[in-house]
Amino acid sequence: LVNVMAKDSSYSLVFAARFQSLYSSQWEFPHYEEFESGDSNFLIRRARLKFDGFAFSPKLVYKLEVGLSNRDISGTSVYTGNTPRYILDAVLKWNFFENFELWAGQTKLPGNRERVISSANLETVDRSLVNSRFNIDRDMGLQLHHSLNLGPNFLIREAFAFSQGEGRNISTGNLGGYQYTGRIEALPLGDFSDYTGADLSREETPKLAVGFTYDHNANAVRTRSNSGTYMVNDIGFHEADINTIFLDAMFKYQGWSVMVEYADRTSDQPIAMNSDGTATGAVVNVGDGFNILTGYVFKNNFQVTGRYTTIELEEEITGAGVETQYTLGFSKYLVGHKLKVQTDVSLNDYENNIDNSLMYRFQIDFHF
Amino acid sequence: LVNVMAKDSSYSLVFAARFQSLYSSQWEFPHYEEFESGDSNFLIRRARLKFDGFAFSPKLVYKLEVGLSNRDISGTSVYTGNTPRYILDAVLKWNFFENFELWAGQTKLPGNRERVISSANLETVDRSLVNSRFNIDRDMGLQLHHSLNLGPNFLIREAFAFSQGEGRNISTGNLGGYQYTGRIEALPLGDFSDYTGADLSREETPKLAVGFTYDHNANAVRTRSNSGTYMVNDIGFHEADINTIFLDAMFKYQGWSVMVEYADRTSDQPIAMNSDGTATGAVVNVGDGFNILTGYVFKNNFQVTGRYTTIELEEEITGAGVETQYTLGFSKYLVGHKLKVQTDVSLNDYENNIDNSLMYRFQIDFHF
Amino acid sequence: LVNVMAKDSSYSLVFAARFQSLYSSQWEFPHYEEFESGDSNFLIRRARLKFDGFAFSPKLVYKLEVGLSNRDISGTSVYTGNTPRYILDAVLKWNFFENFELWAGQTKLPGNRERVISSANLETVDRSLVNSRFNIDRDMGLQLHHSLNLGPNFLIREAFAFSQGEGRNISTGNLGGYQYTGRIEALPLGDFSDYTGADLSREETPKLAVGFTYDHNANAVRTRSNSGTYMVNDIGFHEADINTIFLDAMFKYQGWSVMVEYADRTSDQPIAMNSDGTATGAVVNVGDGFNILTGYVFKNNFQVTGRYTTIELEEEITGAGVETQYTLGFSKYLVGHKLKVQTDVSLNDYENNIDNSLMYRFQIDFHF
Repeated sequence: LVNVMAKDSSYSLVFAARFQSLYSSQWEFPHYEEFESGDSNFLIRRARLKFDGFAFSPKLVYKLEVGLSNRDISGTSVYTGNTPRYILDAVLKWNFFENFELWAGQTKLPGNRERVISSANLETVDRSLVNSRFNIDRDMGLQLHHSLNLGPNFLIREAFAFSQGEGRNISTGNLGGYQYTGRIEALPLGDFSDYTGADLSREETPKLAVGFTYDHNANAVRTRSNSGTYMVNDIGFHEADINTIFLDAMFKYQGWSVMVEYADRTSDQPIAMNSDGTATGAVVNVGDGFNILTGYVFKNNFQVTGRYTTIELEEEITGAGVETQYTLGFSKYLVGHKLKVQTDVSLNDYENNIDNSLMYRFQIDFHF
Repeated sequence: LVNVMAKDSSYSLVFAARFQSLYSSQWEFPHYEEFESGDSNFLIRRARLKFDGFAFSPKLVYKLEVGLSNRDISGTSVYTGNTPRYILDAVLKWNFFENFELWAGQTKLPGNRERVISSANLETVDRSLVNSRFNIDRDMGLQLHHSLNLGPNFLIREAFAFSQGEGRNISTGNLGGYQYTGRIEALPLGDFSDYTGADLSREETPKLAVGFTYDHNANAVRTRSNSGTYMVNDIGFHEADINTIFLDAMFKYQGWSVMVEYADRTSDQPIAMNSDGTATGAVVNVGDGFNILTGYVFKNNFQVTGRYTTIELEEEITGAGVETQYTLGFSKYLVGHKLKVQTDVSLNDYENNIDNSLMYRFQIDFHF
Repeated sequence: LVNVMAKDSSYSLVFAARFQSLYSSQWEFPHYEEFESGDSNFLIRRARLKFDGFAFSPKLVYKLEVGLSNRDISGTSVYTGNTPRYILDAVLKWNFFENFELWAGQTKLPGNRERVISSANLETVDRSLVNSRFNIDRDMGLQLHHSLNLGPNFLIREAFAFSQGEGRNISTGNLGGYQYTGRIEALPLGDFSDYTGADLSREETPKLAVGFTYDHNANAVRTRSNSGTYMVNDIGFHEADINTIFLDAMFKYQGWSVMVEYADRTSDQPIAMNSDGTATGAVVNVGDGFNILTGYVFKNNFQVTGRYTTIELEEEITGAGVETQYTLGFSKYLVGHKLKVQTDVSLNDYENNIDNSLMYRFQIDFHF
């Protein structure tokens, strides 16, 4: 952490970095009968350099975050100029009027809460399957953010984003149409750290945040809206309107935290077609998912978490059955989210029962 | 911006970063008749981390600049070890005697002015077509720089470079021969910021800089001297002596700036051949280009610019007709070149009139 | 160099960077008769950003080092997620009890001394062939380090590593088994900078360090244990137990330095096989190597070095004959290892005499 403030207060810079060391292991467990020897993986899961501060005026805030680990920067393709996807955030935020902020550049869209919570501030080893299947991640464009107090303890936040709709680090420009995202949030019991996992501050009164996002990606060409495989066909790309909605909530009280999330994706043309009407094989990942996570932090900053996740893609389109995951986790916050050790075990249950598996993970998350 | 000076003045370090957010849109306009719906592109156009300072003595200056954006680091090939081209500058500059400086490492060659002006200090959204077709960019090797005062207001600068001739970030070594670059500059009306676009300091007396570069790349194997496609043939590489000259000038006076640039490229063997004398299809981009840019900065730091660019590659060799571009631009310098908003519209006129197009761009350039 | 210490001493951060500019040239010299015109190469050989310090307690030390040059980050493959190998070190070191340290993350294994000496602190232009053929480089996992004083001037150090066995930056997980490394070192004449080349501090009494490493990579799938080519076969990967031992020593006295290194690699299944017992063509690089390097630093910090290296891979398996290299080098330490100029000339003698060659190198190494 380097924290610099210009002598004339004309700018500030905070530099921080972090890395996560992850060990994971997975065993096949078909029909919960034959427990098969599994795979294991040591990984620098995430490693980041982060620069933020204000420039020229406290009303103009910037953020630049780059990824360093192989998993952070993967996704190289012809659409990224055959280069790794190095930049996560490169965004300016301008508080141009009262509670209004205009954002320009590349950053997370105002999508599901779990995604927008920094991977540095999770109370679990990693995000849920609902997030990995449905999130709308980052994109380039403009966002307008606003917040509003409806009384001393009732906070409303609104966000609208207009973006390219192709995802982060794309250098081949817009294919199909643009992406439009709207989100509204209510905090009816007062402000709190609703974008941080675990109730480390042990809220004395119950706190609640509820959010709803509607996202429309017009003539999208990727299977998960602005991410996933490109739906190439014989004349270029299959284009489909893809709509994604998220409904989520965060509750915290005296060490308890509960995060709930529902996601649903639909499309007018989910099956990618060639010009002659034959299917290309690619399909939009339509369907829905639900996730509930709860945790309790003991006074020694040791936390127990439980998570239930279920994903139901539309089987007639995607061919995928219902997938359910049960996770039991433990976290020890040595220095809050700055230095923590997290471990969990998950049971993955598939509708066909053949792919059932057990997964164990252990992670050290470190910030400096 | 982090600015560190050792307590014993044994070294200094300035760290700075920047990113450009670009929106561009292009419409086809064949024969200026059928205006066709166009492509658009949101892009983090450039993002950079920059380290410079002196070490051990103020006479030894270093610079390290790395690119982060997909456009900055693209160009991955077998010649770069299949890795992105991350490093822009990694150079030591040693003032070993009076006005002499010896440079070692990778940095820009003393080529055309427009190229050597940092992309951070342009008065337009981006450089001209003359630059993109003819510039000699960066290379690895040695440079000798010298400056000379011919009287109180007459400055001469000379530079000579000896380099590998393959361009930046090449890890496969020298192919063909080396590259030799000489440049001479005259500032007959006194020193000024001749390597910065826009007359933001509103020079009270007229200021002029004139420069001339001669570059010889012996047995070069790439179509644009030390950049462009490798001219592979059946027995390895086609080798050609490629000569590039640049004549350029910068004029500033009371808010007015004028930058003129002429480039010419010739080669003894412009058509790449196989060992049996058949053409491989690759050709050296021989021809010339001319560019004139003028701008006027109003007292509120709002600037209007106009640019005329014409490129005439040798048609019998390259098959390309004359290409002319007319650009009208507007820049608002909020904090000089550190925070500026720039927009322009360009008409691209091709000799065949079929490829005519209109291009619109909007860019925010931010430094911290 | 940026050196930050929190006001409350809760953390520290040292940021440093460096780059090496290398010129090398090589001539073929078959049978020492026909001296043929050679290849040359300008290269930013290494460029690094390095962050280290302690966090939350001086007992918890971190290090993050990333590579920037094309040679630093090459090795892109499907096993790295098709991304460059950006991270060198990302490791936490925890002094949890007395002289015990637990390391977690990715860093160098406790292998041969020459490898563990930072490339920043070499007394030669680069490491020897013994290192490039046999070293066990970096890996992800856990290490336990311990040191012990057997009297006022007799130091013992022990290290044990448990790692994935696939090398650095692998994102496809563990293939085959894990890797186990043990190392013991003795410094019978007192502590000294035994992991730095050149006796710049001109030790007044003789100083000696001796080290021995035994490394076992169970069911390894790469030709050089945790590096080299993957031994792909018809049913996945050929797996072989690969053992590597290193015996090395460093001696320093009054400007003299001597570094000796012996490496030996064996395997139970050195010839990669398909399921039907046919050879795939890949083989484990079994054999041994010996290296002796000596240098003398004059009082003006000018050093002469000589190096003899011989590599003898098992010819019936690898088909490679004995390779011997004789190197004469000169180093000028302008500011210790922080700014040095190094040059050397090497004669490469091959058993077949056809591949004999002469190599010249010149390098500037700079740290800031």
